[in-house]
Amino acid sequence: MTAHSHKKARESTDQVLPFAARHNGPTPADVRTMLTTIGVPSVETLINQTVPEQIRLSGELDLPSPSDEHDALEELRSIIEQNVEARSFIGQGYYGCRVPAVIQRNMFENPAWYTAYTPYQPEISQGRLEMLFNFQTLVSELTGLPVANASLLDEATAVAEAAGIAYRHHRMKRHTVKIASPLHSQSAAVLATRMEPLGIKIAEGEPDEDTAAVVFSWPDTFGCFEDPREHVDAAKKAGALVIVVTDPLALTLLEPPGHWGADIVVGSAQRFGVPMGFGGPHAAYMGVSQPLTRLMPGRLVGESVDARGNPAYRLALQTREQHIRRDKATSNICTAQALLANMSAAYAIWHGPDGLRAIAQRAARYASRFAESLVAAGFELVSDRFFDTLTVRTEGKAEDIHKRAHDAGYLLRTIDRDRIGLSFDETTSEADFQALCEVFGIEATDAGDRGHLPPQTRHEAFLTQPIFNAIRSETEMMRYLRKLADMDLALDRAMIPLGSCTMKLNAAAELAPVSWRKIGNIHPLAPKPHSTGYRKMIADLESWLCEITGFAAVSLQPNAGSQGEFAGLAAIRHYHASKGDEHRDVCLIPSSAHGTNPASASMSGMRIVMVACTEAGDVDIHDLKAKAKEHEDKLAALMITYPSTHGVFETQIKDICEVVHDHGGQVYFDGANLNAMIGLAKPFDIGADVCHMNLHKTFCIPHGGGGPGIGPIGVAAHLKPFLPGDPLDTDSNAVAAAMFGSASILPISWMYIRMMGAAGLKSASQIAVLSANYLAARLEGRFDILYRGHKDRVAHECIVDTRPFKESAGVSVEDIAKRLIDYGFHAPTMSWPVAGTLMIEPTESEPLAELDRFCDAMLSIREEIAHIETGEWTREDNPLVNAPHTAVEAVSWEHGYDAMTAVAPTGPAQLSSKYWPPVARVDNVFGDRNLVCTCPPIEQLAS
Amino acid sequence: MTAHSHKKARESTDQVLPFAARHNGPTPADVRTMLTTIGVPSVETLINQTVPEQIRLSGELDLPSPSDEHDALEELRSIIEQNVEARSFIGQGYYGCRVPAVIQRNMFENPAWYTAYTPYQPEISQGRLEMLFNFQTLVSELTGLPVANASLLDEATAVAEAAGIAYRHHRMKRHTVKIASPLHSQSAAVLATRMEPLGIKIAEGEPDEDTAAVVFSWPDTFGCFEDPREHVDAAKKAGALVIVVTDPLALTLLEPPGHWGADIVVGSAQRFGVPMGFGGPHAAYMGVSQPLTRLMPGRLVGESVDARGNPAYRLALQTREQHIRRDKATSNICTAQALLANMSAAYAIWHGPDGLRAIAQRAARYASRFAESLVAAGFELVSDRFFDTLTVRTEGKAEDIHKRAHDAGYLLRTIDRDRIGLSFDETTSEADFQALCEVFGIEATDAGDRGHLPPQTRHEAFLTQPIFNAIRSETEMMRYLRKLADMDLALDRAMIPLGSCTMKLNAAAELAPVSWRKIGNIHPLAPKPHSTGYRKMIADLESWLCEITGFAAVSLQPNAGSQGEFAGLAAIRHYHASKGDEHRDVCLIPSSAHGTNPASASMSGMRIVMVACTEAGDVDIHDLKAKAKEHEDKLAALMITYPSTHGVFETQIKDICEVVHDHGGQVYFDGANLNAMIGLAKPFDIGADVCHMNLHKTFCIPHGGGGPGIGPIGVAAHLKPFLPGDPLDTDSNAVAAAMFGSASILPISWMYIRMMGAAGLKSASQIAVLSANYLAARLEGRFDILYRGHKDRVAHECIVDTRPFKESAGVSVEDIAKRLIDYGFHAPTMSWPVAGTLMIEPTESEPLAELDRFCDAMLSIREEIAHIETGEWTREDNPLVNAPHTAVEAVSWEHGYDAMTAVAPTGPAQLSSKYWPPVARVDNVFGDRNLVCTCPPIEQLAS
Repeated sequence: MTAHSHKKARESTDQVLPFAARHNGPTPADVRTMLTTIGVPSVETLINQTVPEQIRLSGELDLPSPSDEHDALEELRSIIEQNVEARSFIGQGYYGCRVPAVIQRNMFENPAWYTAYTPYQPEISQGRLEMLFNFQTLVSELTGLPVANASLLDEATAVAEAAGIAYRHHRMKRHTVKIASPLHSQSAAVLATRMEPLGIKIAEGEPDEDTAAVVFSWPDTFGCFEDPREHVDAAKKAGALVIVVTDPLALTLLEPPGHWGADIVVGSAQRFGVPMGFGGPHAAYMGVSQPLTRLMPGRLVGESVDARGNPAYRLALQTREQHIRRDKATSNICTAQALLANMSAAYAIWHGPDGLRAIAQRAARYASRFAESLVAAGFELVSDRFFDTLTVRTEGKAEDIHKRAHDAGYLLRTIDRDRIGLSFDETTSEADFQALCEVFGIEATDAGDRGHLPPQTRHEAFLTQPIFNAIRSETEMMRYLRKLADMDLALDRAMIPLGSCTMKLNAAAELAPVSWRKIGNIHPLAPKPHSTGYRKMIADLESWLCEITGFAAVSLQPNAGSQGEFAGLAAIRHYHASKGDEHRDVCLIPSSAHGTNPASASMSGMRIVMVACTEAGDVDIHDLKAKAKEHEDKLAALMITYPSTHGVFETQIKDICEVVHDHGGQVYFDGANLNAMIGLAKPFDIGADVCHMNLHKTFCIPHGGGGPGIGPIGVAAHLKPFLPGDPLDTDSNAVAAAMFGSASILPISWMYIRMMGAAGLKSASQIAVLSANYLAARLEGRFDILYRGHKDRVAHECIVDTRPFKESAGVSVEDIAKRLIDYGFHAPTMSWPVAGTLMIEPTESEPLAELDRFCDAMLSIREEIAHIETGEWTREDNPLVNAPHTAVEAVSWEHGYDAMTAVAPTGPAQLSSKYWPPVARVDNVFGDRNLVCTCPPIEQLAS
Repeated sequence: MTAHSHKKARESTDQVLPFAARHNGPTPADVRTMLTTIGVPSVETLINQTVPEQIRLSGELDLPSPSDEHDALEELRSIIEQNVEARSFIGQGYYGCRVPAVIQRNMFENPAWYTAYTPYQPEISQGRLEMLFNFQTLVSELTGLPVANASLLDEATAVAEAAGIAYRHHRMKRHTVKIASPLHSQSAAVLATRMEPLGIKIAEGEPDEDTAAVVFSWPDTFGCFEDPREHVDAAKKAGALVIVVTDPLALTLLEPPGHWGADIVVGSAQRFGVPMGFGGPHAAYMGVSQPLTRLMPGRLVGESVDARGNPAYRLALQTREQHIRRDKATSNICTAQALLANMSAAYAIWHGPDGLRAIAQRAARYASRFAESLVAAGFELVSDRFFDTLTVRTEGKAEDIHKRAHDAGYLLRTIDRDRIGLSFDETTSEADFQALCEVFGIEATDAGDRGHLPPQTRHEAFLTQPIFNAIRSETEMMRYLRKLADMDLALDRAMIPLGSCTMKLNAAAELAPVSWRKIGNIHPLAPKPHSTGYRKMIADLESWLCEITGFAAVSLQPNAGSQGEFAGLAAIRHYHASKGDEHRDVCLIPSSAHGTNPASASMSGMRIVMVACTEAGDVDIHDLKAKAKEHEDKLAALMITYPSTHGVFETQIKDICEVVHDHGGQVYFDGANLNAMIGLAKPFDIGADVCHMNLHKTFCIPHGGGGPGIGPIGVAAHLKPFLPGDPLDTDSNAVAAAMFGSASILPISWMYIRMMGAAGLKSASQIAVLSANYLAARLEGRFDILYRGHKDRVAHECIVDTRPFKESAGVSVEDIAKRLIDYGFHAPTMSWPVAGTLMIEPTESEPLAELDRFCDAMLSIREEIAHIETGEWTREDNPLVNAPHTAVEAVSWEHGYDAMTAVAPTGPAQLSSKYWPPVARVDNVFGDRNLVCTCPPIEQLAS
């Protein structure tokens, strides 16, 4: 090498591409092509035209310089290695369990499962819908209640949601929830947080006519099973609902609460094959009695039929979703914990009823033997009725025993100076048992061990449905998981241009740490030094998110965007209260807001005042001023999405914030569209006091087929004291069961920021905006693009108006959405925020070729519509109204147009690797009218 | 729980299924069904009828009691943790590299890639064939030679294979190979091992008329680049071939050897994205000049056309495979390293030519800077022409420097007391560089660093093919890997009933450890204490395999079955020689043998004498006796497969062994069918002196889409001294580059045995036999089953005769095989061991439902044949001759029979999750006549 060529070599070293170049789809050459199409000279010009000057960031974010995937992984590993793995017997809602390797690899670590979007488009979601349906069936069988949803965020929020059902069931006229037996502290805390703004009291004692519900923990937090009968009787007598909080593994041995009077049963499915992960994510479950079906929050998978009369799954009663009940809501939940619910369902399928019972019996036997041994040695137990959890009186020796346990590598539950708790689980071994005997200084007795379950044991067969009994070999399980995955169209096969949902790359290096054992095997209540690595990672992430948003503090506790909204409004409320302004309860919300905004405000006990929007889609500042003025004394907050839900950077945003501040209100930013802004502008600088960030949208946590999400909030300094606190503390404003919410998936966002660095993050925002404007440029002319900013640019998404085609061709927005499936795409967001439109967000991760494939498909569909407009195809029989087309349909062709056009609209070559929808268009109305949300048991199938 | 119910609980604990119940497909209930169909009362009876009493094992194997997947993983982890990870600068054929996370997750850890079989059925293998084609293109571009194969086992065997080509090219008339520059020791050793039995001398010095080839290592093992010109000129003058051994990363910067006279170029693609893994597996590569195409060993992917004229890939010149050249062979290679070759191809696609050059330049720059720094400090280098590897004279301070390096966490290459080697690579960081300066006590100079590459640098663009330039974002890479995976039908979707190939479950827990860093990041020449964990695992595995087979010792070195055969025969030869019986060179081989057997014997310099088989498929013992007698003085060995290649336990096997022993011969067992025997009989007890085991058949290493395989051998005590030794030692009989061959995948077999235990392994053999007999029972009557044992039972596979249909319906065995694709199956082994038949091996892992689905398909195909026999369908246009049917065909239907019958023979429901072959039947003849085995570069595409 000559000196010259050496210099050249050194330069071209830069061609080992940084992560940002892997994360962003378009190459520099593609960017030039896209700029030409749009007609701007540079990305900077485009951004200047898009992001208002007043808010534009001048410098760069102050973040560590980017690391490549290997170095970032090494760095994170060295942090996480500081966690201490111990054998946890803490229990209290989190138990050791074994993730079957076949599920770990083929579901949890498989992009086909975790990159899938929420199953709003059922035709391309049959796989995960089937597994969620299995989950619902599992819950129904365990709880003995006929209706179960597709999971909730965690046990603590599930308890609060159950109380919300009871409140609403009583038409918001009963204002007390009675606690019949002690809940886990975290559930009590979240319940308190959630009831307070609604003015619902939480009390003990006999239910009365103001009691909406009796909450009965069975077992209670100490592992004791009280007799449910008198509680149920008292509740029924008072007309209150019975909410039972329970353990799913115990239910494999016990009479289902639904059979002895429970109206609602909730709990956590964590121990069904999901690691503890320092607190989450796990799937909580909820079963309800028939009359409560329509009050149930979250998502419900139901069976319906498709256009050809074949059975097909889809989300039932969909008003609960984007069109969430807004200001009438008692729940703001949008997300489920789909991936975790699916893991738990797969776990149940893998073990079947016999295996689950055997696992439960093993834990129960250890508990029983340990109890006998304790008693034989003179210890006293707080109860003689238990499943897997013992609470032991130690006559003040608790500290000693904890120390001995700790030295032996064991963690027990700290209750007080006297009592110690310990829970046995699937992972308990004989060696553990013996070691614990030593810790307590007792002798293991075996003779005389006897059962300690309550008398309500399970007598009937359960989980008799074929799916829970058919799969025992790993080969079958692997193939079942593959078959379901293949039914779905996820991000690993095609662009998912979901407006407002930011379906960007979930990089393999980001996901890898989630599988690390020192991520999975940490109990959220382990002694602090055991989570040193977690806390360091969390501190990094908090500080980076502060830098990105400009805020003084961040809380990672909210485990969904909806919880972030609630936590943010709570901070605002408490801030006002701290200044003696308890009366400030008006929340201004633009009419264009996400449905969750008013729902969250309503749950926060606020009065919602709608602010009008202009025809251009912006907030009508005159109306805002008028409303702010009108409610000046009562103004609590404005909730606003920025860039707007219409996909536009409103120029007046600073003025808007000022108006609110001037009238004593606080500004809440909905961060749904933060992906357009990172490195370009900061919410705090614009004027926000609070903002939630969706880590699953902007920071690469995969959508998991419908969850988990994470919705941390950032706040200005004055709100910092009002952030959610420790869920063990009842007055902490906790919004989730664990201090750091869904901690085990935070490495994903940590890795993303660490690998992108400031310049990378900024480039992602720029490319996201570029891509959306490129789409708009390619589609305009053939479609109307609704809403643009002041310089005719969209932000990171664009809204395509399809309403004209209804009249011109009888084609609905749904027809276009379903037709896109035939082209191999997931549909964009349909009819939101404007009915009859498609909202398209390409994100920065889609390569130009894929953007073009999508535009070509849209333009081709426009041509197809023209064929209908000209009468070449009839309005009743054309590729749009019949879309999507299944293989069965194609092979037994009966339509008046060409089969190849139907299934291979881009040409026969498409068929060599085509995604075929397994069902035709799903009939929503039929499904809602004939609600079926669990598999029938085998006996019913037979009859 | 009452005492009674407690007892019951304890019993049902057993229902937490052991791993064996997960590994085996049929449940106990299924087993009963299958027994009924076969008509035997119990599994024991069936085995008694199948396995001859004389050889049947009475007791159980002495193995550790089975562990569940979690405990087994923990145990293995605690072993592997004993390995020491250090920063390796050892080089010598193994270099640090980064496996891109997207490839790691979506290819290496994805069952769709690793459970695929060898792509003999091209219609269902287009995905991996495309990637292997990419690999060949990469090799061709790097080497500058027009033809490249789909990988070889390792660099050392590749050198030997190249020499074999030269030998054959000269019609076995030239008997010298000249070494022009020092090879890596391991390559020299394997070359010696392989040349010795052929009587080929290895020498240095000028080539002459007896020189078959000149082997030129460029760079040599010390990293030096000698001027190739005089070597090439001398070789050409002597009429010898020029074999160049080189480094693929260096070739990104250097003039391709094919351009300056190389006839064959070989090397290892390891540093293209495959971990060192203590020596393997990695893909070796080979490029050859046009005239040598048909002499090239291994597999060659070629482009051809399908029945509809569309381009399609398939293995070209297939005689190299099952029908390997038998006794005329100079290679016995059957396997490739498909999975690793695919990883390397994906790595090259990921980085593209610019990225690869940048990686190379970085390594070169570090080497160059370090060289300057050394020289400035007064050290002497052995050469001034190098790429990434330096050899330094230390004036006797080597030991000191090694010690300092070791203390700093670095490993350098030990050459002698004076010289130290060090190789820079993709993973070298500035911190490493500085640390190494300290180790050598030198100051890092930067000024004056200059290039040290040889003058033959690369000037032309390379890898200009679109595939190496299209994919830069992770989204694209993830989708490309998914798209290719989806084109293929692997074990994760359906049964692959390949006779003799034992396509059983590759459990997730078995595969998991292969991803561990302390498995991947160990250099095979690291100081012994660094591989303590590896050595412990290997010792376990060796002792378990000894127990299973009855042998005194096992060598895990052979990295394919073929290498095991060679090593086994070498042991036999050297044993005879040790007794003064060098003249024993006759190898008896039954006519029913695998083609590799005679090939291996031939490569071992043995004379092959065929032994006849009886009509029933057994060895004709009279002929055996006659041949043994005839060659009494010369008899070296018998090679025999047991159970036989006809799928039968021959009852006379003990007699057969005795005859051979009585005539002074040794018995070599081909272990291809060992899966029928474990726990039921031991090869040593039967009379074998050597047996190779295919870990990729019997012990769960996945087939990887065509490799890696592992073929360890077990030997009786008297042969132990003749097992392959350390490849660093030229006289060691080494058959592979690394002492323990493909060490990094041995955890798979370790886990399998550890989780199965003795009873589990035995049950697997039993179920394998049961399943084969079940298939035979269900198919007989409609198909003739060829060959059965003395009690009318088959062993673990059965042969279905399809020859009668050629006459009755014009249907060939290939038609049936291809038709099975329409039913969603990989075809069984076609026309081997008997032309016109299908050999079906279900293995123990297939669930009964899948066995039934397969039988139903076969019976349905029989009905279809009947439709032709009766004339309902013509011989020219029916679902068999046109199979497989693509989606394009189905959608644009033109045949005289029903489209639905064609593509959904089991009914329309099949279409909801159908595997669609991406191409129609592939034309082999066209492809062989028009051999295309690399993508054309872009310039050619344009023209």
